[in-house]
Order: sequence, then structure tokens, then C-alpha cells
Amino acid sequence: MIRTFPMNSYIQRLHHQIHLKKTPALVGLDPRWELLPVEIRHRVEQKGGMATAMRAAAYEEFCFRVIDVVAPLVPAVKPQSAFFEECGPAGVAALANVISHARAAGLMVICDAKRGDIGSTAEAYAAAYLAGADPESAPFSADALTVNPYMGIDTLQPFVERAAKVGAGIYVLVRTSNPGARDFQDRLTDGETLFSNVAREIERLSFKLVADESYGLVGAVVGATYPEELAQLRTQMPHVPLLVPGYGSQGGTSHDAAGAFDPQGLGALVNSSRGILYAFQKGQLAQQFGETHWESAVEAATKAMVKDLRKHTPAGQLFHHQP
Amino acid sequence: MIRTFPMNSYIQRLHHQIHLKKTPALVGLDPRWELLPVEIRHRVEQKGGMATAMRAAAYEEFCFRVIDVVAPLVPAVKPQSAFFEECGPAGVAALANVISHARAAGLMVICDAKRGDIGSTAEAYAAAYLAGADPESAPFSADALTVNPYMGIDTLQPFVERAAKVGAGIYVLVRTSNPGARDFQDRLTDGETLFSNVAREIERLSFKLVADESYGLVGAVVGATYPEELAQLRTQMPHVPLLVPGYGSQGGTSHDAAGAFDPQGLGALVNSSRGILYAFQKGQLAQQFGETHWESAVEAATKAMVKDLRKHTPAGQLFHHQP
Repeated sequence: MIRTFPMNSYIQRLHHQIHLKKTPALVGLDPRWELLPVEIRHRVEQKGGMATAMRAAAYEEFCFRVIDVVAPLVPAVKPQSAFFEECGPAGVAALANVISHARAAGLMVICDAKRGDIGSTAEAYAAAYLAGADPESAPFSADALTVNPYMGIDTLQPFVERAAKVGAGIYVLVRTSNPGARDFQDRLTDGETLFSNVAREIERLSFKLVADESYGLVGAVVGATYPEELAQLRTQMPHVPLLVPGYGSQGGTSHDAAGAFDPQGLGALVNSSRGILYAFQKGQLAQQFGETHWESAVEAATKAMVKDLRKHTPAGQLFHHQP
Repeated sequence: MIRTFPMNSYIQRLHHQIHLKKTPALVGLDPRWELLPVEIRHRVEQKGGMATAMRAAAYEEFCFRVIDVVAPLVPAVKPQSAFFEECGPAGVAALANVISHARAAGLMVICDAKRGDIGSTAEAYAAAYLAGADPESAPFSADALTVNPYMGIDTLQPFVERAAKVGAGIYVLVRTSNPGARDFQDRLTDGETLFSNVAREIERLSFKLVADESYGLVGAVVGATYPEELAQLRTQMPHVPLLVPGYGSQGGTSHDAAGAFDPQGLGALVNSSRGILYAFQKGQLAQQFGETHWESAVEAATKAMVKDLRKHTPAGQLFHHQP
């Protein structure tokens, strides 16, 4: 096991950002053509070109502008690779640019690509996405990457080793936020669910790599849509940072996410994507700002989420107690 | 459930190719910089540029030339996305070109990217990779894609629906070829392993979409390195086409792969990557051809695999009985 701890480990940098912004709110960057502000769509359409290239250009502009709005407000963003890949090579180039822009703006970046494969193939994915402390060290210069555990613990190892070497992190899928999460993740073996078995292995891996006496670099994805499992998993994985999707448009509330935190308000990032990006499309913020002022709607939605998490979760501690 | 069967369903096109080439041999395209012929590396290095762009150019040239050699010999190729992604956006552009080149050469293309995510995100991945019968219908114009089932059956559905619509296929990870495959895939619940549970669901999905009275469009990845499980899974999933990795450099033999086939020699593709691509690097073919004639080594290794599969598996039936 590699035990290289760069001066700037993933958790050290993440906790610095969380304390600085006083929130564990994570903004998911899920660009969707049909939901983008019309002004952006019109501009790229006027320039013309292939449909995928136009979309890629629009996604890049939209994400850059969202990043510029949220950079002072949150510690991190989470671009969803699928929407960029849907635009082909031009979209993937836009993803690389979006990650670089976010890092240059001082944000941590978790690339949500849910990769996973064996041996040297996993090494290639790790080298592609895990840049860690030095953004120049990988073509997609993320701080962390989401990873799928189905293929086994040996397939996580190359990601863990690369992350330890460069000061990056990984978030392994444990209990996802979708309705079908129960299909395989809840299967019981000797009274233990599959997701709890995965959680046990991840706690073991992360404990070996605890960088700042609290959390290691191996995190877990656990949906806010299953609050009971979330609280159980926080207890079961005391050294594992959590990435909690499902807040907002997927139905999870700050009450649901509360169990993900330790008493200091650390231990979890709570993600909202559509609820922030497209706040200008419907509801109160749409009425207040309208499409013309969509960036103000993004800002207001982000601030509302930060406030909500402070009020109903231990994240309020980050506000009251300076580190 | 969508029940659109394009004239050219995935299985119809695959079986046509298998009968035409008289083999179920699948060539994996795993370009690795340190293993490429020196002539290719030197040429791109002389042109200069960023390291990732140079590698991408070398990967594209190498894969194009491998494709030109194997196109008359095998029904399909399987590019491994990770190695291209490691080269950043330029590498991903090379992947798109490699897929297009293979299809233009008459080959079926299974993109090995092991994607998987929820709802609209899965739709985006499916739209990115599943072109099916019309190569123009997706930016990465593959006939099929490998998919990870951990997140649940609802996360497979968008891939299945897209595949049914465009005449594409998917291969869901069931029992992988790595040593750690046992960690989670073998967990027993009421006497049934997780992989067998996944297999049961996939058989159910594929049976609904049987296109030519034999196999449906939902396939499964089952490693040749576990021959007992392979034979068991062939029986358990009579309507599921198998993708069998692990032959050759991973230690699986044609005897190990034999259980993947039905009596007509159909039902499986057996993959070899490094054993074919880098046959010029070591062993008898390296002595016979050397690096100068590396394409001849690729050709000889492919022919040897075809012969081996004909001799020791039911794939020999493809040779004796014309469709």
C-alpha cells in the first residue's frame, strides 16, 4: 500500500474549502440542451456548425458562467461526464475546459463519471481523471472521481493508489439515489446488505489512508433519498467522506441529508444539480428573476441551499465555529 | 417496453458477420504507448506537440492499421475507452475515429466503456455511444456498449430502450474476469449469487427483445477465466449473447471458453486484446516476424485464435455448416 501523503491531500484541500465557504453544498454541473437559457442556445446556433459541436460550445459557456457565480459560495462542483460525452469529442473537450475553469476559480472538482475496470485499464482511467493537487498532472484535471465497485476490490486499488500519489480522492458508489438502487444493493447475505458489505471494504481502504486524523481519500456515494441507510452508513464508515446526491429535484431534503454529517458539520458534501442550474425555469426564483437574469437565479438558489443545509444539518457548525 | 425491431437488429447484423467470417473471435483494441511499434512512436514524436496529443495520434494510427489487418478475419472489434480517455480530449477524438474506421471496414464495434448511471444520465450515455444500424446516429458510432449493473435494473432500461430503437446492443457486466470478481459478484443470497441474480434479470430483459428467435439485444460479460460459471450462465441465459474476455494473456483458453456457446457455435464472442495486438513483442510470432512486420504478427495471431476456437469450441460448427 502506497502511503505517500502529499502536503495537499484531497481531504485537507476539501476541508479548507468547506471551512472557507462555510458550507458542504456541492453544485452539480448537468448541462441539458433543452433547459439552457435561450440566449446561449441562440448565440451558438447563429455561429452554426455540427449539432454536437454547437451543444458542446453552449455547455461550456453555460458551465463557465455557473462556475463564476458559485465559486465564492461553495467548495466544489461536480460535472456529470455523460452530458458532455453525448456531444462527442467536442463535448469531452468542453468537459476538460469546464474542469480547468472551475479549478482556476478556486473550486474543487469531482468528476462524476462512475468509471470502473480491471488492472491496467483502471490505471488508465485514474491517470485520465485524477489530477489531485496539481491540475497539470492529468488531462481531465479533477480533484476526485466517482467509481463503480461491482468488479471487485482489486479494481478499486489502482484508483486508490493514484489518488494517494497525487493528492486526489475517489467516491465509490455504495447506495445510490435511484428507485432501483434496492435491486442489487440491498441483497442480504448473512444479514448484511451488499451496500453495507461494500461500505465495510471502503471504510477499511479509507482508514489506511487517513490524512488529517479524520477522513481518508476513499469516499462513498450515498443518496439523500434513503435517509435511514445514510445515517447507518455514516456510523459504519467513520473515516469515509460522503457524496450525497438526491437533494432537491430528486426529492431529498436537508433533513434527509442530516445523517451524513459528523457533529463538526464535516464528513459529507450534499449535491444539487438541476435545482440550482435551472432555478430560472420554474418556481419562485423563475418568477423573481426570469430567464434574462438566470445567473441571479443560480446565485439565489445556491444561497438558499446553503442556508437550508445550515439550518437543518450539522453543517450549521461550520458557520458558528471557525476552524 | 419499446418493441421496435429495426430491419437490421444488433443480433441479425452480428450473426451475419459471425457467419461471414466463420468465427466468434473478437479483437480488443487496447492501445498502450509503451507497447506500440517503435516506428509509430518515432513518427508522432518527430511531429511533436503535447504528449497526450502525440499518444492519441499514435493510438489512432496503430488501431487503424490493426483494423485493416483483422477486418477480413473477425466479425467485430472492441476498443477499450480508458486508454483513449487517458490521452484527454485528443484521445477521445481518436476513439471516435477508430470506431468509425472499423465500421467503414465492415466490422461490428463494441465500445468497452462500462458506463452506468441513473435516468436521464443513462440516456445521455446511450445517446453518446449506441449508434446501432446507422453509424451517423451517435457521436461515438458503436454497435454495442458494455454497461455496469450495480445501480439497478432501472438504470439499464435507458440503454435497452435506445438499443431497441436504433438496432444496437448492450453487454452488462455479470461475472468479470479479474481475481476480485468474487468479492461482491459471488455473494450468496438465499443460495443465489449476485452474478446469477443479475443474470436472471438480464435474461428477462433480453427475452422480451428477441429479434431472430434466438438472442435478444441485452448481452452479458462473463470471463473465460471462470469456465464453470461461464457454462452455468450460458444455460441460465439462453437468450443472452455473451462477451467473453480473459482469453489469451489473461490465462483463459479455448477449452475454458467452450461453455459459452450454443451447439450451433453461436451465443458468444471471445475477446483477445494484448495477445493479438502485441504478438510481435514476445513468443514465437515475435521471432518469426519481428517488429518490422508487426502487422503480419497481428494477422498470424488472429488466425491462430480463430483456428484454436474452431478446434476446441462449438465455433467449429460455423466453419462446417454454412447458414
